[in-house]
Amino acid sequence: MSHASAAVPASSAAAPPAGAHRFSAVISRIAEEMAARDDHGAPADYIPMLAGVDPRRFGMAVAEPDGTVYGVGDWQQPFSTQSISKVFALALALSLDGERIWRGVGREPSGNPFNSLVQLEYENGIPRNPFINAGALVVTDRLQALTGDAAGQVRELLRTESGNAAIDFVPDVAASEAAHGDRNAALAHFMASYGNVTLPVPELLAAYFRQCSIEASCADLALSAGFLARHGVRADGSALLTRSQAKQVNAVMLTCGTYDAAGEFAYRVGLPGKSGVGGGIIAIVPGECTLCVWSPGLDRRGNSVAGVAALDRFTTLTGLSVF
Amino acid sequence: MSHASAAVPASSAAAPPAGAHRFSAVISRIAEEMAARDDHGAPADYIPMLAGVDPRRFGMAVAEPDGTVYGVGDWQQPFSTQSISKVFALALALSLDGERIWRGVGREPSGNPFNSLVQLEYENGIPRNPFINAGALVVTDRLQALTGDAAGQVRELLRTESGNAAIDFVPDVAASEAAHGDRNAALAHFMASYGNVTLPVPELLAAYFRQCSIEASCADLALSAGFLARHGVRADGSALLTRSQAKQVNAVMLTCGTYDAAGEFAYRVGLPGKSGVGGGIIAIVPGECTLCVWSPGLDRRGNSVAGVAALDRFTTLTGLSVF
Amino acid sequence: MSHASAAVPASSAAAPPAGAHRFSAVISRIAEEMAARDDHGAPADYIPMLAGVDPRRFGMAVAEPDGTVYGVGDWQQPFSTQSISKVFALALALSLDGERIWRGVGREPSGNPFNSLVQLEYENGIPRNPFINAGALVVTDRLQALTGDAAGQVRELLRTESGNAAIDFVPDVAASEAAHGDRNAALAHFMASYGNVTLPVPELLAAYFRQCSIEASCADLALSAGFLARHGVRADGSALLTRSQAKQVNAVMLTCGTYDAAGEFAYRVGLPGKSGVGGGIIAIVPGECTLCVWSPGLDRRGNSVAGVAALDRFTTLTGLSVF
Amino acid sequence: MSHASAAVPASSAAAPPAGAHRFSAVISRIAEEMAARDDHGAPADYIPMLAGVDPRRFGMAVAEPDGTVYGVGDWQQPFSTQSISKVFALALALSLDGERIWRGVGREPSGNPFNSLVQLEYENGIPRNPFINAGALVVTDRLQALTGDAAGQVRELLRTESGNAAIDFVPDVAASEAAHGDRNAALAHFMASYGNVTLPVPELLAAYFRQCSIEASCADLALSAGFLARHGVRADGSALLTRSQAKQVNAVMLTCGTYDAAGEFAYRVGLPGKSGVGGGIIAIVPGECTLCVWSPGLDRRGNSVAGVAALDRFTTLTGLSVF
Repeated sequence: MSHASAAVPASSAAAPPAGAHRFSAVISRIAEEMAARDDHGAPADYIPMLAGVDPRRFGMAVAEPDGTVYGVGDWQQPFSTQSISKVFALALALSLDGERIWRGVGREPSGNPFNSLVQLEYENGIPRNPFINAGALVVTDRLQALTGDAAGQVRELLRTESGNAAIDFVPDVAASEAAHGDRNAALAHFMASYGNVTLPVPELLAAYFRQCSIEASCADLALSAGFLARHGVRADGSALLTRSQAKQVNAVMLTCGTYDAAGEFAYRVGLPGKSGVGGGIIAIVPGECTLCVWSPGLDRRGNSVAGVAALDRFTTLTGLSVF
Repeated sequence: MSHASAAVPASSAAAPPAGAHRFSAVISRIAEEMAARDDHGAPADYIPMLAGVDPRRFGMAVAEPDGTVYGVGDWQQPFSTQSISKVFALALALSLDGERIWRGVGREPSGNPFNSLVQLEYENGIPRNPFINAGALVVTDRLQALTGDAAGQVRELLRTESGNAAIDFVPDVAASEAAHGDRNAALAHFMASYGNVTLPVPELLAAYFRQCSIEASCADLALSAGFLARHGVRADGSALLTRSQAKQVNAVMLTCGTYDAAGEFAYRVGLPGKSGVGGGIIAIVPGECTLCVWSPGLDRRGNSVAGVAALDRFTTLTGLSVF
Repeated sequence: MSHASAAVPASSAAAPPAGAHRFSAVISRIAEEMAARDDHGAPADYIPMLAGVDPRRFGMAVAEPDGTVYGVGDWQQPFSTQSISKVFALALALSLDGERIWRGVGREPSGNPFNSLVQLEYENGIPRNPFINAGALVVTDRLQALTGDAAGQVRELLRTESGNAAIDFVPDVAASEAAHGDRNAALAHFMASYGNVTLPVPELLAAYFRQCSIEASCADLALSAGFLARHGVRADGSALLTRSQAKQVNAVMLTCGTYDAAGEFAYRVGLPGKSGVGGGIIAIVPGECTLCVWSPGLDRRGNSVAGVAALDRFTTLTGLSVF
Repeated sequence: MSHASAAVPASSAAAPPAGAHRFSAVISRIAEEMAARDDHGAPADYIPMLAGVDPRRFGMAVAEPDGTVYGVGDWQQPFSTQSISKVFALALALSLDGERIWRGVGREPSGNPFNSLVQLEYENGIPRNPFINAGALVVTDRLQALTGDAAGQVRELLRTESGNAAIDFVPDVAASEAAHGDRNAALAHFMASYGNVTLPVPELLAAYFRQCSIEASCADLALSAGFLARHGVRADGSALLTRSQAKQVNAVMLTCGTYDAAGEFAYRVGLPGKSGVGGGIIAIVPGECTLCVWSPGLDRRGNSVAGVAALDRFTTLTGLSVF
């Protein structure tokens, strides 16, 4: 695959001339607009390593189905993937386990914040979908049970698809999460009381926090998510998911990928997307390309302010919404 | 516009030969598959006029953006639109009132059945979205306040877009709904206690039940929804909605259009869609075509069993999902 | 029965000397303490006729089992009984209908505000207890069905037990309630949708609002509630309730009589009690006496500030708590 | 204090003649009635040591304020106190910490099952009362923080008040609870996420399960609860609680002591009471006596079937209800 920056080549050694790629001009324009914004939101404050990041930082990358990737701003800067990792964990669980994963987690929007226990209780320990924390814990539980190293599998998938072997966990971030992990521990124990997670809770949480601590750049993530634009086909041409499974993941991303703001994201951006509290968002234009944007300032629902705005502008300027 | 049946011409006087349209073969195949199904679900039982319909009936229509429409089975048989009318009421409210309508109703999936009061209470009388009953009441309240005849406006829109001046209310159905209307009355009074509906509740309910009682065929509804595939443009070329508003409506349909099964519909069908307890479902392929399917047997969530299955098959056979 | 004021004879023509009754000194002291309070709360503001009352007004009456009644302050001033009427409606329904009334309403504390719909939905239209509004509507529905005039029956019971034939409805108060009755209408329609109220909702609401509009004084209500201190026996010696039924009513008053503050009332006052938003509270010392206190300023949970404080002082000074 | 069996002397060496005590005849009659029952419920099944107990076993003890205790049936048979221990932990916390304990736990009935997370979430991690599991965890957390050995303090209180130095933990029961402790772990972590428990969760759970594992007999518990009938005064005449605090504990027992059946218990029994899944129930007749009954078969809400029935009969036969 070829890496190529658009207007702001960052550290890329061999940047092609601006405009060499079909969305270069668009993303350059978006980067300028985002730089001019006053409101950047605030970084997540419960993880010290995330809290200190400058909320004005901004990067955006586009990956074409053929593996070409280009970007603007901090598009090659690694950041904490956090909940974006849930998409890759889900894809791996589906790949290894097929439909069975859906016995323990639903595919419906939750209508509640990402870490709510209420719905979980009314629905007997079966989380609504794999992108709220409870559902992601079910997925990691299953992936860990199947592979013995859920977090390592997610890291390996990112490394392989992006071609970047330097992608790795950040132990201090995982440790910070663990130190503030009571809510997730409550979710895990609660589902364990229903038999819907099977690993010892400390092992499950350790795997989950490691998975969330992976650092990767916009370039890495746009490339890694490419299989979702290619209907399940990996960078090397093999199938990670069936066409139907890829559609499942995209559908769940569209309806559930941005916490309690999925409806608004669908209407403003109109693409399957998944955000993380590290400030990143990936988005899929099925059959066309994948996007990843990063800006660490969050809105009150935990989504990157400039990230959502940038994707909104992208679909408006290009007309590439699914609607 | 031209009406044309595909394989089963029904009452169409001048049916073109089968295969004359791009999806004729596909929908004929689907109709055969549906006829072979054992499980048809059961019609809604609380409205006598709906309860008596044979659950094996099936019709499906496709409308092209240019106004051509063709279908199979009972595609020209009028049926009770019920909640499908909510899409047209929303479009009219958006058209007349712009963003203001969103002050009184959200755009997020509800995570609860269509007539739940729970979320409404926790969110202070603001319904989650315009397709649960509470949200539809807010839309009708506003449309009635703006026009003095919400139901008449919806009927007029359907007549104009479909070219079928015979589309009309069915007073007996409206009366049946009113006779079993305690849950909707509770919703309306509850929102009135928050000031989120402004009309006298009996007037609002009368308008709402009239709107839901409109009868139209698959052909009528596929044509009438055409503006959502044409990014807001009506059959006569004028704009009903802006491109952004059309995208809003499609996004809300995808995330909230099939009651508590929106996630599953998104994953199986992958199109913006809206169902009604009369057994109809409309679905939009943005930029491509609109679909309407009808079969009166429902699943436990209130969606047509054969209708969902037929749309699932359509997107699988044609690859026309948004994902 | 003999009416006798303690220290502040109010309009009583022939007041006996202070100290003539066993609690005269205690209630005089309490009245002085209440007069010295700074914080009186605020009258209910949604009924104009209640909103205008001076929150510093205060009256308290004690009725002995033999029908002697005495009081302090505004103890002979009629005020709006509001929810206190629910106790008398429940007693009449039990008397006429026996255990059957408990099929439609529970006897458990609600853990939610008095007009919540949430619990009602989770429990399929069966209200938790007869003192939240939903439960009181069920009781009035049944009493109206049995007698054709629920409100008239409650008025008659109060007149007979108090010996005051002037006790009556206040139509303007009933009309004010009806004008702000959307929440109660929502509750009634919601229960009607489960078949748990049987009358037409407008008839039920009219009966309910009339019942709540009854005006009576502390003296009237302390006397009228006497049967609850006499284990079910009316002033004339006949039985209104069985001993077991009287115990039921007292138990429900203790656990559910003061909206969402029943636990605090039990711990501070330690007596079965029932409050109304008119500022009145009745309380029962089984086998000993009945109390009624009135002061129109309410706390945020709808209970009279000085009323609760006065009863707290009464049980502290006399040691007459049930605990 | 003097131990004396009524009609069924069990293992007591020197039983006085039947009828020597004021309630001897009553409890003998009740024991006969309970022996004749067909329906005994089923023991708690999640703790093997409890599951194996014969549900027909029955014991009942009465302790007089002067320390005399007598009983029938298995009144001297130790059983697992389970949630009954929550009363003693609360009394100790109140004694050591005063009103401060109420900052972290309410005094209102819950309206939800004993181990629900729903209300806890809506009320930001503050449990409704100290007798649901979440509230008991808050009390134990505070008692452990104050004393370093919450469970040891509870055991010591029981030993001292009953005069039985053999009262002790049952490590196997504590271990069984821990092995099925995911729901309690969820509650503890959830409250920790709000800062409403302060100890490390494993330490808190260990203390809590030890406390619940204490075994004591009806005689022991009736004597130990004597301070609640003596308005806070211990067996040795010193004050454990103020009169007001004793009233608080009794009030919370009446409104919240029997899980989701507090209303029914109040109406049937009419006494402050606290049940445990070991099949025991203590009940207080303020100023008169304390009762403890044991029969291991439970109803669906977790209360002893024969225990509730026996207390119901006791208050019916003696007229000793608080109502």
